[in-house]
Amino acid sequence: MSVWIQQEILLQPRPRGFHLITDDIVAELPSLRSIRVGLLHLLLQHTSASLTINENADPSVRTDFETVFNSLVSEDRRDLIHTYEGDDDMPAHIKSSLLGVSLTLPVRDGRLVLGTWQGIYLGEHRNQGGRRRVVATLQGQGD
Amino acid sequence: MSVWIQQEILLQPRPRGFHLITDDIVAELPSLRSIRVGLLHLLLQHTSASLTINENADPSVRTDFETVFNSLVSEDRRDLIHTYEGDDDMPAHIKSSLLGVSLTLPVRDGRLVLGTWQGIYLGEHRNQGGRRRVVATLQGQGD
Amino acid sequence: MSVWIQQEILLQPRPRGFHLITDDIVAELPSLRSIRVGLLHLLLQHTSASLTINENADPSVRTDFETVFNSLVSEDRRDLIHTYEGDDDMPAHIKSSLLGVSLTLPVRDGRLVLGTWQGIYLGEHRNQGGRRRVVATLQGQGD
Repeated sequence: MSVWIQQEILLQPRPRGFHLITDDIVAELPSLRSIRVGLLHLLLQHTSASLTINENADPSVRTDFETVFNSLVSEDRRDLIHTYEGDDDMPAHIKSSLLGVSLTLPVRDGRLVLGTWQGIYLGEHRNQGGRRRVVATLQGQGD
Repeated sequence: MSVWIQQEILLQPRPRGFHLITDDIVAELPSLRSIRVGLLHLLLQHTSASLTINENADPSVRTDFETVFNSLVSEDRRDLIHTYEGDDDMPAHIKSSLLGVSLTLPVRDGRLVLGTWQGIYLGEHRNQGGRRRVVATLQGQGD
Repeated sequence: MSVWIQQEILLQPRPRGFHLITDDIVAELPSLRSIRVGLLHLLLQHTSASLTINENADPSVRTDFETVFNSLVSEDRRDLIHTYEGDDDMPAHIKSSLLGVSLTLPVRDGRLVLGTWQGIYLGEHRNQGGRRRVVATLQGQGD
């Protein structure tokens, strides 16, 4: 049986930085359990935050992500135009595109097929990002 | 009814920089309107340009993207080998992989489900890139 | 006929750097030939390596990728915490997210629909990465 399910997931506001959200996503998708083989697609509907996959165990990885991305995309440069909302405005747009806002993940027997050390990160690149919205599209063969 | 449609989209030549192409893509995909729930996949068939999602309203965001990516991936360094086609050659390849050449976007009720401020950018990283080709694959449940 | 196939692909250990793996992937997917129109999704189940698409002909592009990514994400900085496994540890995590660990590629008439110059790169960002595992999910309309 072919399955297509599409729903919105609202993520609570988080401080600037990188946050592990695998459990939040899975908890919102009970229909995941009905998929034998398939794919889960996630689109973060924003341009100043990001979704990426990285190490799910040691919180220092997320701290180091924030350190490195802040130095890769500096807020101190004076040659940017689009800074109306503050120094974090344009750098947040750049980080969003460097990391991306969309993920596609394999599903098997009702679960995400991630590597042992892989988790889903939300990159919150604004100082005050507020709630973030994800469109989840689940497709596959059901039981 | 399950739908699979695959077609080529030819993008007109654009100057180096970042360009909003959401309307160009949608205009070439009349079959989008027949999808109730699904996904659109786009592959840019080049290695010196990119596709990404970012802010669709203020053109200064695209200007700042060009500024920031030119400083992230400098054309002045002398330790690169693959520069046969000019100083923009190898940096264009790097930018293409930093941003990516492929997007997957949710579809509902015949329309792309992007966030309010999201649009599709073509990153043209060559000085003379010429026409660019996209393979669009549309799948989903039809009416 | 609707097709869903999911399988693991084990990639042999490769030295640090960028490696063209298109042929390795295709050789492991004989079922690709049965797809008339579809998509192939690849997930690399690791957080210190990456998958990206770039130039498939001149090996100097891969050499330059290693040069540029090593300067973008330096191993010399002293402000990182997560360096337990060596100086290449945290930079490998960053490169993995900058480039991504997942690709979706169009399929038509039993073959990947890549551009003439496009190939699949494995980015091996650890000094001793070992074997790497990919989950391949193939879906589409069969013959």
